[in-house]
Amino acid sequence: MRLDDLPTPSLILDRSRLARNVARLQGRARELGVVLRPHMKTAKSARVAELATGGKGPITVSTLAEATYFAKHGFHDITYAVPIVPAKLENVARLVAGGTDLKLITDNEGVARTVEARGLELGVTFRILIKIDTGLGRAGIAPGSADLLPIAAALNGKGAALAGVLTHAGHSYNAHSIEEIKAIAEAERAGAVKAAQRLRDAGYPCEIVSVGSTPTAIHADRLDGVTEMRPGNFVFFDLFQLGIESCAVEDIAVSVLASVDGHHRERNHLLIDAGGLALSKDTGANKNQPGTGYGLVCLPGGKVPLPGLAVLDVHQEHGLIGHAKALDAINKLPFDRFPIGSRLRVLPNHVCMTAAMYDRYYVTDGGSEIVDEWDRVNGW
Amino acid sequence: MRLDDLPTPSLILDRSRLARNVARLQGRARELGVVLRPHMKTAKSARVAELATGGKGPITVSTLAEATYFAKHGFHDITYAVPIVPAKLENVARLVAGGTDLKLITDNEGVARTVEARGLELGVTFRILIKIDTGLGRAGIAPGSADLLPIAAALNGKGAALAGVLTHAGHSYNAHSIEEIKAIAEAERAGAVKAAQRLRDAGYPCEIVSVGSTPTAIHADRLDGVTEMRPGNFVFFDLFQLGIESCAVEDIAVSVLASVDGHHRERNHLLIDAGGLALSKDTGANKNQPGTGYGLVCLPGGKVPLPGLAVLDVHQEHGLIGHAKALDAINKLPFDRFPIGSRLRVLPNHVCMTAAMYDRYYVTDGGSEIVDEWDRVNGW
Repeated sequence: MRLDDLPTPSLILDRSRLARNVARLQGRARELGVVLRPHMKTAKSARVAELATGGKGPITVSTLAEATYFAKHGFHDITYAVPIVPAKLENVARLVAGGTDLKLITDNEGVARTVEARGLELGVTFRILIKIDTGLGRAGIAPGSADLLPIAAALNGKGAALAGVLTHAGHSYNAHSIEEIKAIAEAERAGAVKAAQRLRDAGYPCEIVSVGSTPTAIHADRLDGVTEMRPGNFVFFDLFQLGIESCAVEDIAVSVLASVDGHHRERNHLLIDAGGLALSKDTGANKNQPGTGYGLVCLPGGKVPLPGLAVLDVHQEHGLIGHAKALDAINKLPFDRFPIGSRLRVLPNHVCMTAAMYDRYYVTDGGSEIVDEWDRVNGW
Repeated sequence: MRLDDLPTPSLILDRSRLARNVARLQGRARELGVVLRPHMKTAKSARVAELATGGKGPITVSTLAEATYFAKHGFHDITYAVPIVPAKLENVARLVAGGTDLKLITDNEGVARTVEARGLELGVTFRILIKIDTGLGRAGIAPGSADLLPIAAALNGKGAALAGVLTHAGHSYNAHSIEEIKAIAEAERAGAVKAAQRLRDAGYPCEIVSVGSTPTAIHADRLDGVTEMRPGNFVFFDLFQLGIESCAVEDIAVSVLASVDGHHRERNHLLIDAGGLALSKDTGANKNQPGTGYGLVCLPGGKVPLPGLAVLDVHQEHGLIGHAKALDAINKLPFDRFPIGSRLRVLPNHVCMTAAMYDRYYVTDGGSEIVDEWDRVNGW
C-alpha cells in the first residue's frame, strides 16, 4: 500500500524521523545520567513505546486506558502522571495485582490517607510519587511546602508506599529563549531534588526523582540528583516545538494526509478534507510563529512546508488553505499545482491533540510506501 | 448504574433535553413546510438519529464512516455534505449498490465529469447536489454563478444524476443579533431557490432544495421554495449556541462528567480530570460570552452552571477551574464544597468537538441514574 491508496484524512508517521528523535533523547538521557521514561500521552502506541524505550522499558501514561493497554503489551514499569482520584484505585489495583508496577501521583494528604486505606482493603501496596510544583502552577506542592512530610507520613508502607517525587516544568512551553528554558530546567531539577532531600532528611525513602518536559529534557545542562526524565512530545515534535526551537522542521515525524476537495479561485483558497477534527483546533503554535494557522502544508512527499501556505481556517470537516502572509494575499494560489483529488500533508500545531483523533498511524520510512500500521489507544 | 459509578471523564447525555430539542426543531420544520434532515456530524449516533427523524428518516453526514455506520443501522436516505473527491467514490458505490440513497455534493464541473464517468465504470448512478455558497465563503458556487449549468450538464443521468442544490449558511454563527440571523436565513433560502430556479429554467430537474444551520433553522421566517433543512447542533446545543441565543442553558443536553483531582488553595484553583482532550480546545463561545473559558461548571446534578465558575485553562488531561470573572479573583473558591474525588459536570463550548473524543454517551433522564449507553461513530 502507498500514500495514494490511503483514505483521507489519515495520520502518517515517518518512522525514520521517529527513530532519529528517539535516538536524540536517548542520547540526552545518557549524557545527563538519567533514565528516559517517555510520556506516552503523545504517541499512545506500543510500537512507539518499544522504540522509545529500546524494548518494554519504563514509560509514563496520562490515562488508565493507556496504563491498561501498555500493560497488556508487556510494559510493566509505568507511572500514571495525573493526580489519582480514589474512585480509580480499583482499576489500578487490578493492574498492580496483575504484575504491573503502576506508580501513582498525589499532592494531597487526604488522598494519600485514602490510598493507604484502599490499598489495605484491596490487598495491594500502591506506589506513590508526591507531585511537586516547580513553577508550572498546575498540580503539585512547592518543594519547600509544609504539606510534603505529612503526605509522606500518610503512606505507611502497607496499603501505599512512597516511591519518590515527580515534577513537570510545563511552563517551559511558554519560554521565549533557550536560555529561559535552561533556567526553567534548572529550577525543575533543583525543586525535585530539594523535595527529595527533605524527604530523605526526615527518614523517608525517595527512590525516584522524576522531572521532564520535552523542552527541558532537550536543553537541561545537568540533572544531578535526578533519576529519570519524562518528555513525551519529542517522539514526533510539531510546529509548536519548532517555534520554541526544540526541533527542526525536518524532525516533525507525524502529519495529516488530506485531499484537496475544493478550488475557490474568487476567494483564493483551496479546500481540503481535514478540518477541526482532523487537525485539532489548537492554535498555540501561532504565538511563536504567526501565520501558522491550523497547520503548515507540505506536498504529499512531505519533507518541508510549502513556503507561505497555511491552513487558515477550519470547520469540522473542512480546512481552508491560503497564503499565510497577508502580503501575499493579492497573489493567486497555484491552483493548477493542486488539482481537486490531489493530496497534501499538513504538519500539526500540537501533535498530542491531532493524533488523538485517529485510531492508527500509517507508517512510512520517509517515502510513499506504507510499511506498517500501528494502533493507538484513545479515550479514558 | 448511576452517575457516581461512571469512570471520569465521561460524556453524559440528558435524553429529556434531547427529546425537547428534537421536538422543537421538528415543530420548526412542520411550521416551515420542509423536511428535517438532521446533520448527524454532532451526535454521530444511530439512537439520536432515530429520535431526531422519528425512525429511520433522512439524515445528513459529514464522513463516509458515518454514512457506513448509519446505513448499517437502517438509514438509507443520506446526504454526505462534504465535497466529494473521486477517490472516495468506490466506497460510496458500495453503499449505493447496497441500497442506500447516498447523495453527494460538488461545486466543480471537473469533479462532476469524473463522478459521471466513475458511476458508469462502477455500475451505479451517483446522485449529486450542487453546492451553493450563500455567504459563508467556504465551499460552493454563487447562486448566479456561470458554473452552475455546466455542472448540471456534466451529470448526464447515467453515471451521475442531478438531485438538487444544497447550501449551508454557517456564517449565521458569527451573527450579532437574531435579526441578523433572520437576514442570513433569508439569503440562504433565496440563494438556494434562485439556483434551483436557474436549473429548472434550463430544463434540469431539481428535486431537493436543501438549506440549514442550527441558527437559521431556528430563526428563519419562511422557507418558501426549500424542500429540507439540515441543522445538526440543535440536538444537544452548547455554550456557543447559548451565546447566540439559539437555546437556553437548560436546553444543553450533553456535558462532561469530571472528578475533582486537585485543590490548590494558594493558586485559588480546583483541578479536574477533564482537560484539552476531554473538553476540546474550542474557545469560540468566549466571543459572545467572555469568561466561558473551556466550559462552564455544574454540580453533578447538572441543571445549570454554578455562577462565576469556569474551566479557565486546560492541559491534555487537566482542567483548571477558577473564578470566571476577574473581579472575583480575590474571593477564595469554595474548596470544601468540592472535595477531591467529588464530581462536577462541564457544559461544552462546542459540543461537536467535545463529543468527538468519546466512543459513547451515558444516557440519563435528567436524574442520576444511567438509563442507557449509546454508541458513536468517530473517525473517517
